[in-house]
Amino acid sequence: MESEKYMSVAPVTSETKIGILGFGGLGQAAARVIAPKRELAWVAAADRKGYAYNPAGLDPDACIAASHSQGSLGYLDPYGTLSSSSIQEVIESESVDGYFLALPNLPNTYMASVARQFIQAGWRGVLVDALKRTSAVEQLLELKEELQAAGITYMCGCGATPGLLTAAAAIAAQSYTEIHSVKITFGVGIANWEAYRATIREDIAHLPGYDVETAKAMSDAEIETLLEQTNGMLYLENMEHADDLMLELAGICARDRVSVGGVVDTRNPKKPLSTNVQIQGRTFEGKTATHTFTLGDETSMAANVCGTAFGYLKAGVSLHRRGIYGLFSAAEIMPQFVK
Amino acid sequence: MESEKYMSVAPVTSETKIGILGFGGLGQAAARVIAPKRELAWVAAADRKGYAYNPAGLDPDACIAASHSQGSLGYLDPYGTLSSSSIQEVIESESVDGYFLALPNLPNTYMASVARQFIQAGWRGVLVDALKRTSAVEQLLELKEELQAAGITYMCGCGATPGLLTAAAAIAAQSYTEIHSVKITFGVGIANWEAYRATIREDIAHLPGYDVETAKAMSDAEIETLLEQTNGMLYLENMEHADDLMLELAGICARDRVSVGGVVDTRNPKKPLSTNVQIQGRTFEGKTATHTFTLGDETSMAANVCGTAFGYLKAGVSLHRRGIYGLFSAAEIMPQFVK
Repeated sequence: MESEKYMSVAPVTSETKIGILGFGGLGQAAARVIAPKRELAWVAAADRKGYAYNPAGLDPDACIAASHSQGSLGYLDPYGTLSSSSIQEVIESESVDGYFLALPNLPNTYMASVARQFIQAGWRGVLVDALKRTSAVEQLLELKEELQAAGITYMCGCGATPGLLTAAAAIAAQSYTEIHSVKITFGVGIANWEAYRATIREDIAHLPGYDVETAKAMSDAEIETLLEQTNGMLYLENMEHADDLMLELAGICARDRVSVGGVVDTRNPKKPLSTNVQIQGRTFEGKTATHTFTLGDETSMAANVCGTAFGYLKAGVSLHRRGIYGLFSAAEIMPQFVK
Repeated sequence: MESEKYMSVAPVTSETKIGILGFGGLGQAAARVIAPKRELAWVAAADRKGYAYNPAGLDPDACIAASHSQGSLGYLDPYGTLSSSSIQEVIESESVDGYFLALPNLPNTYMASVARQFIQAGWRGVLVDALKRTSAVEQLLELKEELQAAGITYMCGCGATPGLLTAAAAIAAQSYTEIHSVKITFGVGIANWEAYRATIREDIAHLPGYDVETAKAMSDAEIETLLEQTNGMLYLENMEHADDLMLELAGICARDRVSVGGVVDTRNPKKPLSTNVQIQGRTFEGKTATHTFTLGDETSMAANVCGTAFGYLKAGVSLHRRGIYGLFSAAEIMPQFVK
C-alpha cells in the first residue's frame, strides 16, 4: 500500500526499458520471462558477437532463432549489430534503464569487470545479477562506492540461490533472536546439459578435485565423460555460495552458519529433490526451531532465477528513481512482482 | 551489503528509542523480545491506565510485575505515570523514535484512531502494527496521505499473519508469472487463553454466528463456556485477514485469491498443526507449482509476531531516516534483523 509513494516518482511501467546481457540458456530463458510483461519493455540483448536493440521491443523467438541458427543476436534483421565489443557498444549506444546480467559467473572477476564498464561509460541505471560465488560478490563489494557515485543501483545475488532462497531466509530469521544455521539444499533437473554449458561448468567447479579454472577449461567432451561416470548426476556439498556473505552483510548471522549444497541431474528435467532452505534459530523464549521454505518441483531453475532477477530489477528501478544508488543484495530489499 | 547507504544516515543503534503501546499478552511478549536487543532501546510502554518511561531503558520483569500485581505500568516506581489518557500523554511528553502498537485489533477503527492521535500530536517517527483484519487496514489506508504529510513511517500488518507469512508469499511469488492462490493455514497453541484475552476474542469473532461486536461483548465466563463446548479448540476458515489486501496492493494477486484459516488450541501450548503458507502459481513455462513456507512448531505466536514487528520497525527507522514517510505493508518492505 502507498507503494507508489515509496517506490518511485512515477510507477514502473512499460516505459522502463530493459536489456539482457548474455544470451546463453539463462539469457534466453530471461527473454521468455520478460517478453510478456507489461511493466517492463525488453528492448536490448547482447551476446559475445553482437547485440540486438529495438526500442519498440524485441521478439524472443526471433532473437533465440538468430542466436541458434547464426550464432549471434548480431544477425537479427533489422535490429542486430555485429560487434566484438558488444557489451561496451550497447551500453554506450542504446537507451536502456536496467540490465539483467545473465553472464557467466566465471571467471570470478568477470561480473565486476562488466560493472566497471558501466561505470566507466557514465551509464546510470539499474543492474541485477544472479551471481553465485562468494568471491565474485566480494569483487563487486569493492565497487560499491564507485557504483553509488556513478548513479548505478546494483542488485547483487538476485537469482534463486543466492536470491529467492536468501530472501526467504531473511524473512524467516524474524522469528528468532539468534540464527543457528541456514541450510540451502537445491535440486536441479535439466533435460540436456548443453543448454546450460556455463552453468554446468560452474557446478563442476564445486566438485572435489575441480576448481574454477579446471572446470572452465574442460571441453564439452570432457564434461560428457564426467557425466557418464556419474550417470548424469552432480552431488555438491559445502559450495562456495554468496548466500553466506549476503546474510552476514544483512546482519542475520555469521557467514560460517550458512551452507549450500545440492544435487543436479543433467539428464532429467525432474528435480532429484525439492529445493529448500531451512532456517534454524533460537526464539526469545529459548526454544530451538526450524522454518522451512520449499520450492515446488515444477518450477524450473530458469523460472526461479529469472523471475526473481526481474523482481529485483523492478525493485531496483524504484530505488533508482528515488536517487538511491549503490550495491544491494537480495537479503536486504523486497523484490517487487512484475506484471 | 552497502546496507548503511540504503538504510540510513546513521545506522540503527541503541540510540533508537522504542516504545510499546498496549501491555497485554502481546505487549508483554514484545517487552521480552526487545529488552535484550542492543540495537533498539526499549524506553516506554503504555497501558490503559498509565505508562512507564525511562530513557535509560525499561526492565521487562519490573514492568510485567507492576502490570500484573497493580494493574498498570503507571504504578512502576519511579518510572510510572498514572493517566487515563496514557497514549496521548506518552506521545506528547516523551522522546521515542518508534512504537510497536501492541493494541487490540478491535474495534476495527481503533488502530486508525491511535494513528490519528500521533498525527494530531505532531509526532514524527515510525509506527508498526500487527493488525489482522482487512477492514482495520482499510481504515489505515485512508490515512496514508496524512501519515506521509506528518512525517510518520507507518508499517502496517507486520505480525505473523499478516506479516511474516505475507512477506514469505511475496518472495515466493517471484517464481511465477501469475499467482493462482495464496493459502495461509495457521496453528496456534496457548497454554492459557486468559493470557491472550483480546486475541482470543478476535479469533472468536471469525467463527460462524459471531462478529466483532458480539465477540467483544462476551464475558470471560461466556468464552469459557464456548471453549468447553469445543474442547478448547477454535477452527477458523476464510477469515477476514489483511494478507489479501496487502498482497493485492503489492501487485501480487487479486485479494480473492488469498485465503486464511487456522486452528487454535487454547489449552495446549503445542500447535495443532504447523503454520504454513502455500503459494500456487503458473510459471513462464506454463507449469503449475506450489511453494510452501512452514514455520517451526516450536516458534510461538509471540515469537513470530513480535520478532517480525521489530524487524519491520527497524526497517521503518531506516526509511524514516531517508525521509521516506507514509504507509507501507509487510509485503512491500524487507524486514531487518534486530540484534
